Amino acid sequence: MQTKGSGAHPTPPAAVTLHDVARVAGVSVATVSYVANGRTNVRLSDATRLRVQKAIDDLGYRPNALAKNLVQGTSRFIGLVADGVATTPFAGQIIHGAQDEAWRHGFVLLVANTESDPQVENEAIDMMREHQVHGILYSTWYHREIAVPSAPNSSDMVLVNCFAPGSRARAVVPDERQGGRVATEQLLKQGHSRIAFINTTWESPARTGRLAGYRDALAAAGIDFEPANVIDAEPNQEGGYGAFEQIRRLDVTAAFCHNDRVAMGLYDAVRVRGLKVPTDLAIVGFDNQEVIAAHLRPPLTTVQLPHYELGAAGVRILLGLDPVPAGTVTQLACPVVQRDSDG
Amino acid sequence: MQTKGSGAHPTPPAAVTLHDVARVAGVSVATVSYVANGRTNVRLSDATRLRVQKAIDDLGYRPNALAKNLVQGTSRFIGLVADGVATTPFAGQIIHGAQDEAWRHGFVLLVANTESDPQVENEAIDMMREHQVHGILYSTWYHREIAVPSAPNSSDMVLVNCFAPGSRARAVVPDERQGGRVATEQLLKQGHSRIAFINTTWESPARTGRLAGYRDALAAAGIDFEPANVIDAEPNQEGGYGAFEQIRRLDVTAAFCHNDRVAMGLYDAVRVRGLKVPTDLAIVGFDNQEVIAAHLRPPLTTVQLPHYELGAAGVRILLGLDPVPAGTVTQLACPVVQRDSDG
Repeated sequence: MQTKGSGAHPTPPAAVTLHDVARVAGVSVATVSYVANGRTNVRLSDATRLRVQKAIDDLGYRPNALAKNLVQGTSRFIGLVADGVATTPFAGQIIHGAQDEAWRHGFVLLVANTESDPQVENEAIDMMREHQVHGILYSTWYHREIAVPSAPNSSDMVLVNCFAPGSRARAVVPDERQGGRVATEQLLKQGHSRIAFINTTWESPARTGRLAGYRDALAAAGIDFEPANVIDAEPNQEGGYGAFEQIRRLDVTAAFCHNDRVAMGLYDAVRVRGLKVPTDLAIVGFDNQEVIAAHLRPPLTTVQLPHYELGAAGVRILLGLDPVPAGTVTQLACPVVQRDSDG
Repeated sequence: MQTKGSGAHPTPPAAVTLHDVARVAGVSVATVSYVANGRTNVRLSDATRLRVQKAIDDLGYRPNALAKNLVQGTSRFIGLVADGVATTPFAGQIIHGAQDEAWRHGFVLLVANTESDPQVENEAIDMMREHQVHGILYSTWYHREIAVPSAPNSSDMVLVNCFAPGSRARAVVPDERQGGRVATEQLLKQGHSRIAFINTTWESPARTGRLAGYRDALAAAGIDFEPANVIDAEPNQEGGYGAFEQIRRLDVTAAFCHNDRVAMGLYDAVRVRGLKVPTDLAIVGFDNQEVIAAHLRPPLTTVQLPHYELGAAGVRILLGLDPVPAGTVTQLACPVVQRDSDG
């Protein structure tokens, strides 16, 4: 191991090398490498093996993981390509889940943050392949359809929080429809039957899935779907704030918002008119974005996007622990997180 | 390269190996390795080198980065240990800056997310050393004092967004004092001279540094420091909301808040009383947390924590591109981001 610069740490111990062990044991470097890496298909006497092992123990030699990968012909790396790491905590939650699961099985994550730059993405995937990753998790910070990166594919790939129709890549995504259903059911349980849905203007699986879930819940409760009660708005605070003008003209007592940011803007619009959440308007969000949801006044009831679980499931699928056929899209449930805004 | 499972991708091309190249060129695997890895200290005839290079080109062989690291005796990995990746975008911004800078110099980041778990942190550092990282960036999601991890230290380490007094480790942190000063100056420029500071109850460099900067700015403007104008509150929305009761009893027209979450809570408290930002109270935040600051009503003037720059600077220090002596703590400036809340 080389250290750069001079004396940045108090007398770092010099790393013990294969050469040191070989010298002490009186054998070749290759022999030390065979023993250190547990190769049993090489003919060595027991005495030699013991002598090398003793020198390894005495010197505190730590086998080099890179060398081990090479000798064993496979690496313990899993690549994780992620966008949006720098802009939301969502990608970080996917990384967290993937890392915990990878480490549990003795794998290390090689993480590359692309911030949605295709050139960075290609470089990242090339880099991972050069490092002989066992496979690649390709993740997006919001649930969307993608085209599988078309570079020659020498490693397995699992899509996390995204999917590629027609591809044989396996994918794991949130169940948007179930999430929309439980959000609406939460308001129904609180006695609301006239419920608006502030959906997003962005075409996405979240847009169609959450709307389908909203309709499922109404239908199951015997309530007619009223198209006018669905409002499209930008999926941010400004969208939620602006949507209130339409909400107030509807005969509703509650609103299910496409995400927590929309709910935050809607809170502002309610308050600026001297009204109150949830007595004047009950509100449910989506995402459970920690920095917002738990800290609104009143704290926001919302639906959790299962980012941690998506990352963990991606690793299990990649490693064959959750065996699913090629092309399968696995959906994970989105649970309700109840706080105080649902009435 | 092994692929796991069966048929997850349409006929992935088999990876070309050293053995394939050796067979085609009629030389040993070692010879191919020497040529592929650019070793010039090995005696090979020009004819042999040419024959191997032609086989490499014909077969499309991609040198294995792991093998290359071993042959060259050093790796192109930089380790990045980060906490808080799953809870804030701050760690992600450090990762983003570090990755951009590392890639610019041909290095790859090995990222480990510890979520502040010391056992995970030790495992991460061990893992990185086993992979012969060139050095390790040890980063924290908020600026704080740490003890340098005490495990035997065979690689160089740079602290990012944290520091270890008495250690010889180099560190790069935000300049909290300068940040507190420019936040206060921003309000002074807008004509405010009676300015409250809602500081945090958490003992931290941000707490002492921003207060010192606030005092610097007042002193430079010839305004007496009034201890009663400094309020300590939890550094979140609830803290900002609660602090308003004290603010309203002070003779102030503006408040500098320890962070954007405090400012968000203070907005709520101002509005619930039918008052307005900035006419009734001008507000400046700190952090520039995107999901909050730009989307409050009115959008929040704040001070940017330079997370991206911290990550990039950490890499430059580690690689010796910004040479600084052992034990140096480098401070990076925090710029004002002006929006509409400062009056």
